[in-house]
Amino acid sequence: MELLEEHRCFEGWQQRWRHNAATLNCAMTFSIFLPPTKDTTPPPVLYWLSGLTCNDENFTTKAGAQRVAAELGIVLVMPDTSPRGDDVADDEGYDLGKGAGFYLNATEQPWATHYRMYDYLRDELPTLIQDNFSVSDRCAISGHSMGGHGALIMALKNPGKYTSVSAFAPIVNPLNVPWGQKAFRTYLGDDTAAWREWDSCALMEAAGKGQYLPVLIDQGDSDQFLADQLQPARLADVASQRHWPLTLRTQPGYDHSYYFIASFIEDHLRFHAQHLQK
Amino acid sequence: MELLEEHRCFEGWQQRWRHNAATLNCAMTFSIFLPPTKDTTPPPVLYWLSGLTCNDENFTTKAGAQRVAAELGIVLVMPDTSPRGDDVADDEGYDLGKGAGFYLNATEQPWATHYRMYDYLRDELPTLIQDNFSVSDRCAISGHSMGGHGALIMALKNPGKYTSVSAFAPIVNPLNVPWGQKAFRTYLGDDTAAWREWDSCALMEAAGKGQYLPVLIDQGDSDQFLADQLQPARLADVASQRHWPLTLRTQPGYDHSYYFIASFIEDHLRFHAQHLQK
Repeated sequence: MELLEEHRCFEGWQQRWRHNAATLNCAMTFSIFLPPTKDTTPPPVLYWLSGLTCNDENFTTKAGAQRVAAELGIVLVMPDTSPRGDDVADDEGYDLGKGAGFYLNATEQPWATHYRMYDYLRDELPTLIQDNFSVSDRCAISGHSMGGHGALIMALKNPGKYTSVSAFAPIVNPLNVPWGQKAFRTYLGDDTAAWREWDSCALMEAAGKGQYLPVLIDQGDSDQFLADQLQPARLADVASQRHWPLTLRTQPGYDHSYYFIASFIEDHLRFHAQHLQK
Repeated sequence: MELLEEHRCFEGWQQRWRHNAATLNCAMTFSIFLPPTKDTTPPPVLYWLSGLTCNDENFTTKAGAQRVAAELGIVLVMPDTSPRGDDVADDEGYDLGKGAGFYLNATEQPWATHYRMYDYLRDELPTLIQDNFSVSDRCAISGHSMGGHGALIMALKNPGKYTSVSAFAPIVNPLNVPWGQKAFRTYLGDDTAAWREWDSCALMEAAGKGQYLPVLIDQGDSDQFLADQLQPARLADVASQRHWPLTLRTQPGYDHSYYFIASFIEDHLRFHAQHLQK
């Protein structure tokens, strides 16, 4: 692991690291915020998954999350959104290839060689964090747009791994929206049965009752992608049918930008803190 | 005026505007945060001046200031750091030309045609803000690095115009540091007597007693530019001799980045609010 940057921030440390990710067959960069040490108890971790075109720095620089994470004693881990490097397959579209890994394991070539963000986030990165930083084994997950999709599928596919999940403007039903269909056809092939393993609505419909974990979703009603790509109400409907503890808040006037995230990230951190600290 | 962007943010509005700046002979972009309306009283304004290489968006996206400005009811105005456009003289260095206007009126060609940021900030921009937004006539000013220099000279040269001034890691004595000497020689010529009009230490030394306004400065002690370019203690020394109300806080471990600004911007906004609301 190579430390690329380190900045004092809200009495803690904002760092940026590079490491060789065996799962992804490439070097990966992640950012981490380490809150000020309050006592000898290792702090819990919140993983943040970003949206299309982002890397580890968008949330780190724009969300203003460190202030509240410092207060609550939560480590923030911001991974990249796809494998990176000259050897990694890419596409001209902003919504495919680098910056658009969709947090799944690709099965189609040329993508399957590197695009295994799901395994990377489930196993390799948490192990790396546990081995190199003083953290507890309690963690939660959150994300935005494609990263909201990522956070939800990570939580729904791994009962017991996260205490709670939250999302800003998530793609909840990629099976049925253009961004998801394009990515899934490319990464997973034409058999739509395989797509259901990476769709939050399908996963929640299929989940056992013992798998419930609390979900918080914020959605701006002026979000340009709301109608065509996001539609979080579909997941809220499934949750309602399943009596799943999901809160969907519609925020009047807010769009898809980081100004929206910055406005409500404090609520998400306090929501997670409540469950992380139990 | 052309509205380029608008985002809901902390129940207020973050906007980006373009207008033709007569003072600068070019089109200029500025950002503005309008806090949520609390009552019929027009809110006061805090002008923020950014550092070398920045434009109106660095502080807007990275400082997290909108949260506190929304709470306190303060309008934030973020101008650019120099004139812009293909016709505007430039230099290869990051510390000269576009992005490096030093908030002065240039007298040397080819700079004098456009580089009149001082007049723009003193007259044209405040008039534009007053004419187009619901704001009170009370204002304060703050900035970072070159923008800290800008905020201090704006306040020191215009007694009564601002209720208070603050700065993060400001260049307080450009007369005697490499950044300032390079810029002043280029923009103002070789006669160093003319430079003193744009140097905070010299201006404070020459100020009349009735001109005192409160000054808050934060400086990180791990700032890579502290020894060679900044040295805010020089201004604190002048203030001490003149019994000027200046608070210089040294922040252990903090560097020159926006992580430093984000960590302490709340203190600066509360400092200004105290004086703006009198």
